[in-house]
This record gives sequence, structure tokens and C-alpha cells, in this order.
Amino acid sequence: MQSSSLALHTDKYQINMIYAHWVNGTHERKAVFEAYFRKLPFGNGYAVFAGLERIVQYISHLQFSDSDIEFLGRQEENYDPAFLELLRNFQFKGNLYAVPEGALVFPSEPLIRVEGTIMEAQLIETALLNFMNFQTLIATKASRVKRVAENDVLLEFGSRRAQEADAAIWGARAAYLSGFDATSNLLAGEIFGIPTKGTHAHSWVQSFDSELEAFERFAEALPDQVSLLVDTFDTLSSGVPNAIKTAKLLENKGKRLSSIRLDSGDLAYLSMKARTMLDEAGLPYVQIVASNDLDENTIFNLKAQGAKIDIWGVGTQLITAADQPALGGVYKLVERERNGVMEPTIKISANPEKVTTPGRKDILRIVDEESGKAIADYICFPHEQQARSGGKLRLFDPVHPYLKKSVKNYKAISMQQQIFVDGELVYELPTLDTIRAYHKEQLQMFWPEYLRKLNPEKYRVNLSQEAWELKQKLIEEYMGQHED
Amino acid sequence: MQSSSLALHTDKYQINMIYAHWVNGTHERKAVFEAYFRKLPFGNGYAVFAGLERIVQYISHLQFSDSDIEFLGRQEENYDPAFLELLRNFQFKGNLYAVPEGALVFPSEPLIRVEGTIMEAQLIETALLNFMNFQTLIATKASRVKRVAENDVLLEFGSRRAQEADAAIWGARAAYLSGFDATSNLLAGEIFGIPTKGTHAHSWVQSFDSELEAFERFAEALPDQVSLLVDTFDTLSSGVPNAIKTAKLLENKGKRLSSIRLDSGDLAYLSMKARTMLDEAGLPYVQIVASNDLDENTIFNLKAQGAKIDIWGVGTQLITAADQPALGGVYKLVERERNGVMEPTIKISANPEKVTTPGRKDILRIVDEESGKAIADYICFPHEQQARSGGKLRLFDPVHPYLKKSVKNYKAISMQQQIFVDGELVYELPTLDTIRAYHKEQLQMFWPEYLRKLNPEKYRVNLSQEAWELKQKLIEEYMGQHED
Repeated sequence: MQSSSLALHTDKYQINMIYAHWVNGTHERKAVFEAYFRKLPFGNGYAVFAGLERIVQYISHLQFSDSDIEFLGRQEENYDPAFLELLRNFQFKGNLYAVPEGALVFPSEPLIRVEGTIMEAQLIETALLNFMNFQTLIATKASRVKRVAENDVLLEFGSRRAQEADAAIWGARAAYLSGFDATSNLLAGEIFGIPTKGTHAHSWVQSFDSELEAFERFAEALPDQVSLLVDTFDTLSSGVPNAIKTAKLLENKGKRLSSIRLDSGDLAYLSMKARTMLDEAGLPYVQIVASNDLDENTIFNLKAQGAKIDIWGVGTQLITAADQPALGGVYKLVERERNGVMEPTIKISANPEKVTTPGRKDILRIVDEESGKAIADYICFPHEQQARSGGKLRLFDPVHPYLKKSVKNYKAISMQQQIFVDGELVYELPTLDTIRAYHKEQLQMFWPEYLRKLNPEKYRVNLSQEAWELKQKLIEEYMGQHED
Repeated sequence: MQSSSLALHTDKYQINMIYAHWVNGTHERKAVFEAYFRKLPFGNGYAVFAGLERIVQYISHLQFSDSDIEFLGRQEENYDPAFLELLRNFQFKGNLYAVPEGALVFPSEPLIRVEGTIMEAQLIETALLNFMNFQTLIATKASRVKRVAENDVLLEFGSRRAQEADAAIWGARAAYLSGFDATSNLLAGEIFGIPTKGTHAHSWVQSFDSELEAFERFAEALPDQVSLLVDTFDTLSSGVPNAIKTAKLLENKGKRLSSIRLDSGDLAYLSMKARTMLDEAGLPYVQIVASNDLDENTIFNLKAQGAKIDIWGVGTQLITAADQPALGGVYKLVERERNGVMEPTIKISANPEKVTTPGRKDILRIVDEESGKAIADYICFPHEQQARSGGKLRLFDPVHPYLKKSVKNYKAISMQQQIFVDGELVYELPTLDTIRAYHKEQLQMFWPEYLRKLNPEKYRVNLSQEAWELKQKLIEEYMGQHED
């Protein structure tokens, strides 16, 4: 990217709306927006929230440069110069709440809440969604992969197929926070401290007169980290035998061959054959790495077929979330200032799931005291005390209210954290390893039926009675006003 | 991105191979790599090459920073400090050839050729593929959209769903070079000079007590650029009538409402109804913009249904290339230095289409002198003169050689351009508008059957006799050496 500032990484309509508010004298009116998604990706039972660190950095450095202002001054909209001066001095002074990265999250939950002037809340929408949508998507995909290979080593190998550089870097981070063990991308290693791993390519073997020579030279150069790619010519008749010879050479020097890598062909068959060959050669410690367009489904099936693979290199399918490459996260106005008072607001739609839930809201995770497992998420207003006090709680489905149950003997965990207060960062960004550990704890909190890859149970996300009643009331008010 | 340098935006195995070559004393051996893809995306008949400007910038600034070197010094590979010093002083000194951005390109064509030391050629692989794969993918997707809406206005609206910031910015550029008219992303506008467009969101309407008030206020603020989103409440009973009232107000001030935007519901039905309402109100000049998960298929079908839409806002499906979010571009060694002489090299595979074509190659586009239309692309070695001289040319399919034909009365256009010579940039990057015009010219050069969206004719990409014979010879040599 040629611009160091991301202030203009926004849709023009944000600036146009801010400008129209400014002309109208309403740009400093208060507003509350919430970011959420409506549908889980990949048919998964949960999503893994990510993107917050990037959002914090973005907001902390959010400032228009002189060239940004000059650029805006050249637009066909002919913005008033006084408005451009306002932008030049812009700083985010609002509040931001968000769930922590690594949290398990569900549809319609307010993952991020922004409270501020309409100007600042509107300006950050595009970038905030861009970061949240992509990183949450990849963290969720990676978590799916991890579920089918809990005890194996997972390597993120997707940089060359990622959708440009930021996707490679931030995607590697998203994969790591969901349980991947390392990435091939060195820049992600440098920036985030993610362990990095690499073997060699076919071109290494092609650079020598024979595969055996290529293997031996590689082993001499990196004797402590030798992984050999065995499919340049023929995996079982050439690659594995040459790798075994190289392993023996290494043993003579007191070293061990780390692994061999399979990158084509029938990975189930080849890995079982290679495992037998390695074991029969007295090399049970040599691990088998597999790569080649893997995802959670191919890994699941390979394991079911008895593949002997210890380490999985996952590339294209993960880094692009190939089966669903976008999370449809949205950012909706839930409260607005009117005559000096904050009022809840609703957006009606002919599409019922697109009707917004008015008012600023918190997420309480209702956890059974006995089992330690989550029962439901309970969306309520910040002032509501009932669930927080631990009293008997009536849960009901907001779409089908007859689906109800009562719970007691639970604790209610508030999922949102204060990140910015009046523009000041009050949240200490956790380390990536803390986030990984938190994600693991989060998974522990859910029964396996919510976590399975195929046809997971639907986790309850319920509205408080008060939030539900407000929504019904505003729908009725609206319908009353707009009836023909 | 926190690091200003992209030197570490590479896979660790590149550094490991370079290191092993260095230990082995072979890192300065010459090598030739070619970047190409094997299969066209989206079932399209062509791809649109893009990514070169980004690659040029990357290579021009390719340098390891002190912190990069320090990071590499901490790796478990324990690289020798002398090797790290070599990296610290690294500069790309090789040659690079590439087809121009906007060119129509086809499978197995050497789109980029890198000639240099094995060290420099290997180091740049990951970033080069990352940029080429993504930008070519999006330019191709955008070109497909343009084919179904040649005479309409196309707006790129995908930033919030793009796979992180770089994808939004460079994706907007790729869309523009293939014929999109504008982007919503202001940063892409600033960096690349792409026209930017924006209307307003539902939140604008929600900020006021009534839709009409919201429209009027917006029109007052931006009287020359008014586009009104008409689906916040009900498109036909509320949005369009209020837009018509606003248009009349504007007319009283000597202004014109630019457009209304439909963002939900049945776009065919709503646009036809809205068109009639606008026309009956004496507002034939007000255009209709549509958005809502559009791609080339939905646009094609809406037009077939008679939708009255002038301007299409295309988001998620374009910016993520949702139906195929990765182009599988690869980078393969085709020549290597051996005993001081460059030798062609081949990579064999059990998968026949993965066998590489040895030797550095050029692409000649064979164009019929009479019709001005392309007949075939002819892949040959740089020294081959036959096709360049315009003499009678025998074309044959490299997989099915009986599919042959002879051509005469043609011109042969060399598609590759010199970009870097001995590390020096010798190519003047064209302006984006020049690239757009070139892409249009390229399209003119192809018969419509190659350009259609569904089941296009397969364009001929043939090997020269000499290139084909060399490939057969190396395959036979290899098979002779490796027979059981």
C-alpha cells in the first residue's frame, strides 16, 4: 500500500453522509452502531471473533493526512473547505466495546458497539467491517480445520494464493489464534511472533542432477530442520527411498530427519506406504507432512481412511475461505440522539431476518454452574440486572417464543469489553498466545454437539424480555405509521 | 500492515532453500522461472493479466530492514551470520519480463519470466504469485461483469467484504482496469486516480424522523450529486414517491436528481415499476442504480427480465471472486545453470497437465492481417524466428498434435515486455487509463465466441515445433532414467 494512512480506506458514501450531516448541522449528534453477522459461515455451529487488534490500530492512528484532504478537495462533490478543515482535525473520541478475539460468537450478537458522534461512527464503518469480516471468517475456517485434527500439527501455507498481502499476513494471524501451530509467512512471523515453518520446493530438487544429491545437500545445510519433499519424481520409488538414505546419513552425524512432505497423489495411500517404509527402515521418528489443497473435509476423510499424516500444510482453501469467501457482517444504527435524548431506532425490512434489534445491547453468556458449559447467550440492555444477578432466568427464542426454558444456578458472563472510552484506548491488547489460550477455554465451555463440523446443534441466542418487547413495540409503531 | 518492507512477505522455504544454496555455494547460479496458471477461472474463455504495477513496486523496494535481519537471526534454523549479511545487502539484479496489465491471457502462457540468480528468483516467488494471482483473478471477474453490461455504468462497491485492506484497494484497481467506471473506496481513488462514487446508507434515513426529510436534507447538502436509497421502508409506496418529491424540489432550484438506488427485493420488478413512476412524473433523466450481491449471472438475468437499471453496484461477489476465490498461478523453474551453461529443465508429474515445458519462452499472438483478429497464441523460444518473420506457420495442439492448421498472412505480436534488465527498471508503467484502453483493444482482437460468459470457445495456445520437441525429448530422457 502506498498510503501510510488508512483514513480514506472508507466508502465515499460515508464522507457524503458526514458532509450532509455537517451541512445540516447534525454531524455531532450522538449515535450508537452495532456490528454483527446474520448467518454462520461454512454451516459451522459457531464463529471465532477476530480483527480487534487491527481495528484498535486503525482507530488509534485514524487521521487524515494533507494529501488525503487535498484529494477530498478535488472531488466532484465540491465539499466546503470548512468541512475539509473539520476532517483535517478529526480524531476518534467515541466509545467502542467489543468481544475479545478468540471468543466463540453467534449470529445477531453485537460483536462491536460504537458510541459516538454520527460523524465518527459513520467514518469507521467500512474499515471496521473489512477487518472484522475477513479475520473472523479465517479464524472460523481455521477453527473448523483444528476440530478435525486436534492432535496434529497444523501449518498455514496459503500466502501465494491469499487475496493480496494483508490477507496473507492477517489471515496467518487469524489461523494461529484458532489453533494453527505455525505459518510459512515470515512477515506474519516477524509482526506477530507466530512460529514459522518451511521445507523446500520442487525447484530445489530440479536444481541438482539427482534427487538424492538434492536431499543430501539440503540436509547438510540445515541438519536440525530437515524436511524433504518426496514427490518431485515418484514418491514411493524415488522420493521416500532417497529420504531414507538421507536420514541414515543424518543419523551417522547424530542428527535426525524431521519429516518428509507429500504434495500430490493419493495422500491416504502414499502416507500409509511411506509410514511403513520409514518404520521398516528404523525411522519411526520421521514425521509425515501433507499438503495439496487441503481443508477440513479432505483432512477428515484422509484420517477416516487411515492416512498416516502427522502435520498438515493448509493453504488456498483456508486463506481464502474458499467455500465461502466473505462473512456478511453488517453495521447498523441502533440508537440516535433526538432532541438531546438517545432513542432506540429500528430498520424494517420485507426480509424478517434483516429487521434490526433496537437499542444498545450487551451479550451475556449463560453458563451452567455445575457443568461449566454454556447454555445460551442472552442479549439484553446494559441496565438490565436480572440475568447478571443470577436469579431465575426465562429464556425464549425471539422468533418462536414458545421455545422457552428456565434456568437457574448459572453465571452470566458479560462478553463485551470496553476498548475505547471517549477516544482513549483503555483495553490492553492481549498477546496472541493469550488469545489462543482464551479460544481454547471458550471451546471447553461448549458441548461437542455445537462444535461438530457437520450439522451442528444450533446454540441458543435469546433476547431479554425487555429487548424483545421494545423491538415488537417499534415494529408496531412503524407498521401503524406506514399502513396503506 | 505494520512493516513498511515486504521483503519478509515470503514463505520460509524460500529462505531455507536460498540458505541451503548458499551453504552449498550455489546461490549465485543462474536460473529462469516462469509464472503461469493452468486453468482459467470461472469457466471463462480468457483471463485479464494484472498485478504488474504492484510487482514492480515490490521489486524496486525489495530490501531487508535491520529488524527483518534481526528476526531471521532468531530462527530455529540458526542461519550463519555471514548469510544474514548477504541478505542485508540484497538487491534484485535480475531480468524480468511480463505481459502488460490488461492483456488477455490463457493457460500455460509464461506471463512473467524471471532470469537471475537462484537466490533472487526464489526470494520473490511468493509475493509475485500473491499479487499476480489476486489481481488477475479480480480483473478477470470484473471483465466478465463488464461483458454482460457493456453499455451500463459499473461501480465497485466491495470494500467492507474484501479480504482485508490490500484486497479492497488493489481489487478496486483491477476492476477499474477491466472496465469498471468507479469505486466506492476513497483510498483506491487517492492512490490510483480511480473515480469514486457514493450515495448514502439506510442509517442516513434512520437518522431523521421521516424518509422525505432525510431525502430533502441530503439533496440540500449535495445538490449536484444526489442519489437516493429508496428501500429503507418500502421501495414503491414510500421510497420512490419521496424521491420524486425531492426531484421536484431540486428542479425548482434548477438542479436534477441524479439517481435512485435499489438495494433489496426483486430488482427486475422494482426497477421496471420505479422507471415507470419516474417517467410518469416527468423525470426520465433520473437513473436507477441497483446493488445487492450482484455478479455477472444476476446482472445477465436481470437484463433478460427487462430490468430498467442503468448503474450496477457490484460488491462481495466481485471483490472476493466468490465463485472461485483463488487463481492457481504457479512459478516453475524452466532453465538452470549447470557447469556454467544454461540448460532447460523439466518437472515430471503423474498428472500430465502438471508437467512443465522446459526452456525460457516467449508468447507470440498470431493475428490475422485481414480480420485483425487473433488466431492463436504461439509459445516459442526467444531465438526462434519463423513466426516472427511472418512465414507460413504450422500450428498444432501440444496435447493432440493431429489438431493442426497452417496460417499465413498474419502478424506475430510478442506479448512479453522487458520490465527489469540487470535489476534496473526499464519499463515505464502505463497510466491506469492507458491500461483500460489497452484492455479494450485486446478485447477487440478476439472473436465474440472466445469472450462469451458461458461455454466460450477454447482459444488455441500452441507450442512451437522446437519447444514441443524439447519437451518430448526431456520427458523421454527422464522416463529412460527412471524406468524400473
